[in-house]
Amino acid sequence: MAKKFVSTITSQTENFAQWYTDVCIKAELMSYSDVKGFIIYRPYGYAIWENIQQYLNTQFKQTGHDNVYLPLLIPESLFQKEKDHVEGFAPETAMVTTTGKEDLNERLIIRPTSEVLFCTHFKSVVQSHRDLPKKYNQWCSVVRWEKTTRPFLRGKEFLWQEGHTIHASEQEAKEETMNMLSIYETLGKDMLAIPFITGQKTEKEKFAGAEATYSIEALMPDGQALQSGTTHYFGQGFAKAFDISYRDQDNQEQFVYQTSWGVSTRLLGAIIMVHGDDDGLVMPPYVAPTQIVIVPISSDDDVMKEATTIFESLKDHYRVMMDTSDKSPGWKFSEYEMKGVPVRIEIGRRDLEHKQVTLATRYNRQKQQVPLSEVIGIMPELLSTIHQKMYEKAQTYVESHTFHVNDYELFKEKIALGGYVSMSVHEDAEAIIKADTQATARVIPFDQSKLENTCPVTGKKASQIILFARAY
Amino acid sequence: MAKKFVSTITSQTENFAQWYTDVCIKAELMSYSDVKGFIIYRPYGYAIWENIQQYLNTQFKQTGHDNVYLPLLIPESLFQKEKDHVEGFAPETAMVTTTGKEDLNERLIIRPTSEVLFCTHFKSVVQSHRDLPKKYNQWCSVVRWEKTTRPFLRGKEFLWQEGHTIHASEQEAKEETMNMLSIYETLGKDMLAIPFITGQKTEKEKFAGAEATYSIEALMPDGQALQSGTTHYFGQGFAKAFDISYRDQDNQEQFVYQTSWGVSTRLLGAIIMVHGDDDGLVMPPYVAPTQIVIVPISSDDDVMKEATTIFESLKDHYRVMMDTSDKSPGWKFSEYEMKGVPVRIEIGRRDLEHKQVTLATRYNRQKQQVPLSEVIGIMPELLSTIHQKMYEKAQTYVESHTFHVNDYELFKEKIALGGYVSMSVHEDAEAIIKADTQATARVIPFDQSKLENTCPVTGKKASQIILFARAY
Repeated sequence: MAKKFVSTITSQTENFAQWYTDVCIKAELMSYSDVKGFIIYRPYGYAIWENIQQYLNTQFKQTGHDNVYLPLLIPESLFQKEKDHVEGFAPETAMVTTTGKEDLNERLIIRPTSEVLFCTHFKSVVQSHRDLPKKYNQWCSVVRWEKTTRPFLRGKEFLWQEGHTIHASEQEAKEETMNMLSIYETLGKDMLAIPFITGQKTEKEKFAGAEATYSIEALMPDGQALQSGTTHYFGQGFAKAFDISYRDQDNQEQFVYQTSWGVSTRLLGAIIMVHGDDDGLVMPPYVAPTQIVIVPISSDDDVMKEATTIFESLKDHYRVMMDTSDKSPGWKFSEYEMKGVPVRIEIGRRDLEHKQVTLATRYNRQKQQVPLSEVIGIMPELLSTIHQKMYEKAQTYVESHTFHVNDYELFKEKIALGGYVSMSVHEDAEAIIKADTQATARVIPFDQSKLENTCPVTGKKASQIILFARAY
Repeated sequence: MAKKFVSTITSQTENFAQWYTDVCIKAELMSYSDVKGFIIYRPYGYAIWENIQQYLNTQFKQTGHDNVYLPLLIPESLFQKEKDHVEGFAPETAMVTTTGKEDLNERLIIRPTSEVLFCTHFKSVVQSHRDLPKKYNQWCSVVRWEKTTRPFLRGKEFLWQEGHTIHASEQEAKEETMNMLSIYETLGKDMLAIPFITGQKTEKEKFAGAEATYSIEALMPDGQALQSGTTHYFGQGFAKAFDISYRDQDNQEQFVYQTSWGVSTRLLGAIIMVHGDDDGLVMPPYVAPTQIVIVPISSDDDVMKEATTIFESLKDHYRVMMDTSDKSPGWKFSEYEMKGVPVRIEIGRRDLEHKQVTLATRYNRQKQQVPLSEVIGIMPELLSTIHQKMYEKAQTYVESHTFHVNDYELFKEKIALGGYVSMSVHEDAEAIIKADTQATARVIPFDQSKLENTCPVTGKKASQIILFARAY
C-alpha cells in the first residue's frame, strides 16, 4: 500500500516537469480549478504561504511599513497614465465590461499590480514633507492573462505582497529598494533554506515603468533560474505622471521618489524544486506547515499514552501533529515523506521497552534511536541542523553550477549544461545570447571587479558583467 | 488649531449619516477610489480588520478549520448549477468578458461568494467517510454590484472571511452552523464590545440556497439594525446539485451535509456607529490599532526621557505609540480623540514634578492623575474596565430600545421610534409590516416562550415570534 502511494510520482530524472506537477498534486499543495491557470491553494499549500506572510509581516512592520488594501479593479483610463507601465501590462489584463444588470461605461481592469492605484492614493494623502515617507504594503491576489501556466510558477491569478513607498529624497528611496531586497534575501536564507543570487536587472529585463529593478534569483535542479522576487526604484517617473508632489521645508513643491517590491506564491515553486526529491516534498523546517509528525506504531495503551505525552510537550513550541488514524504505519510514513515533514517520531512497543523513540529526518532519510528523556530537548538544535544542511546542500549546488567565462564558445557549452554563467559583455550581446542559447540576463551582479575590456560576443567594449541562465 | 480639526465633523444629531462618513474619512479609516463603491482601506482602518482576522483565525484553528484560497473567477455555467443561489446573486455579478488580447469564450464572474467553487473542490477531494469532515475558511475580497454604497456598510467590493464545511451527518453540520454563530457572538462580546442579537432568519430573508440562515444583528444609535454576520445550514441542496458524495462505513454512497458562514469589513461600520461620538471614533481597546498613545507635553529632556521609559515598558505588551512630532499638544489630543485611541498618557513638566502622569480615557472623556510608579501596573485592569463599560453602555442602549408587543398599532409606534420590536406573527405579516413601516424581519429569536395565539397584523394564527427593525 505504501509502495503504491509513492509509485504514483514520476522520478526527477525521468521527467522533471512531470515530477513537479505530481508533487504539487500528491503532496496536496494545490488542485486545479475549472478555469485554466487559476489554482486552488489547499490547506497544506496555503499554510506555507501563511508562514511566509507571518515572517514578512514581522519584517515589514519592524522596518516601519503599514498594511493597506486597495481596490481590485482599475479604470482603464487610469491604467494608461504611465506609458511604459501600460505597454508592459496591457496585453495581459483581464477586463470587467458588464454586470448582471448592465454594461459598464468604462472597462475595469483586474489589478495585475497596483502602482497606478497607489499613485492616485498617494496624491490624495500627501501634501507636506511631514506626510513623508509613506511606506505601505498590500497582501492580495493579482491577475495576469498568461498563456502558459504552471502551478505556483506562472498563473493567471497568483497571491503576493506588493510594497509601495514614497520618499522625499532620492537616497532614501534607493535605500528602501536595497533594504527590501536584503529582507527577501534573508527570507531565503533564514526561512526557505534557499540561497538567492541578487543583483540588478538589465534595461531589457527591468519592470515596466522602473528606473532600476533588482531581483532575487534561485537555481532549480534542472539548471534553470527562477526569478523569485523583485524590488523597483521608480525615481520620479510615476510621481510626474500622477502628479504626486509635496511642499518641502522651504515651501517649494517637489515630486516624491518612489519604490515598489514584491514576492509571490512563486516562492512555493522554488521550495518544491530546490529541496524536493523522488519521494516528494522536502520542507525546510522553519516554513514547514507541520514540523514534526508523531506516528504511534501500535495502538497499545502505553504506546498511545507515551506518544500523547510527547505530543503535549511539543505542541506549544512547534507545529506538530500526531496521526492516530487507522492507516498502516507504512502508508503514513510514505504520506509524510511525500509531504516533506522534516521530522517524524515513530514510537512502538519495542521503542517503549528500550525507553526510546525512532526519529526519522526527511532531508537525509536517516533514522536514529533517541532516548525518551532527550526527544524534547534535542528539537531546537535538530531543526536548526536540518535547516542548515538543507541550505548548504542548495548552496553547494549553486556553486557547482556557477561559472565565470570570457569566451563565447565556453559560455555556450556551460549554458547547455544548465546553471549560471557570467561574462563581461557589451549591451548588444544580451539579445544575441538569447537567440543563440535561450539564456536570459538574470542579474548584473553587484561585484563587477572582474570586468574585462572586450565582449567575446560582439567584439565591442564590454560595459558590465552579466549573469545569464535559462530561466522559468 | 485643535478646534478647527474637530469642527470639520458633523454632529450625530445634526446628520447621523454625514457624521458617519466624516468619521470614516477624518479618522483615516478609508478613502474613496476612482471606482464608485470601491474603497481604500487605509492603515488605521486595515489594522482593525487585521486584529479581527487574528482573533478569528485563532478561534477557527482551535475549532479545527484550515485556511485555503480558491480562485477569484467563476465560470458562468458553474455559477448556474444551484437554482436558488444563482437567482439570488446573478443581478449583482461583475463579469470578465475580455482580456488585453482577446475575448473570452465564456464569461467569468468575479466571486460574490464562493459556494460553487468550494462545492466543485469538495467533490474532487472527498471519496470516503475518512475524508470527512472538511472544515475550510478563506480570507478574501468579494464583488457584488450594489447600487447604493457606503463605506464599510455596503460596497461593490468588500473584505470578508467565508467558512465552508462539509460533514457526514446532518447533526454535525447543524452543530457547526450554531458553533460558528456562537464564535461570532463572542467576537462581539470579547473584542468589539458589541452585544449582538442572534437568531434564525425568516424564509424571506435567508441566504440564496440555504435551508436555514442564522444572523448576528447589532443595533445602531439611529435605531436601525445592522446585519453583521451570518451562518448557513445548507442541508444537502448544494451537495445534490454538485454531486458531492462519499462512501460511508457500510460502503453506501451518501451526500454530504454542508454549511457556510462569514463576517466582513461591515464589522468596522458597526464599531464606528455603536461606539462613536461627536468627537469621532471611540475604539474598544482589544480591537484598537493603537491602544495607548503617549503625548509628551514638553520637549524637555527629562520629560522625553520619562515618556520614553513608559513607552519602552508598555511596548511589548500593548499596541502603543508615542507622538513626538512638532504638532501642538492640543492638536494631538484632538487627533487621537478623533481616532478613538482608548487611553492617552500625557506627561509634562508639572506632572514630572509630582511624579505622575495625566491619563485620559476616550470613552468617558475623563482625566485622572496617576503616580508614575502605577501607570504600567494599572493598564490590564484599565483596558478591561474600558471594554466592559463600553459593552455595558451598548447593551443598555439595546435593552432600552427593544420591545415586545402584541398590538400592531403599538408595534408601528415603537418601530417609528427606532430599535427592535418583537411580536407573535403569522408568516403573511412580514410583507405587510415591511410595506407599512419599512421594518424587516431581523431574526426569529431562539426564545419563543412568549408566543401568542393570534397575529395582530393578519388576525391569523401566529406561528412564531419575529424580531423586527428598520435596517441598513
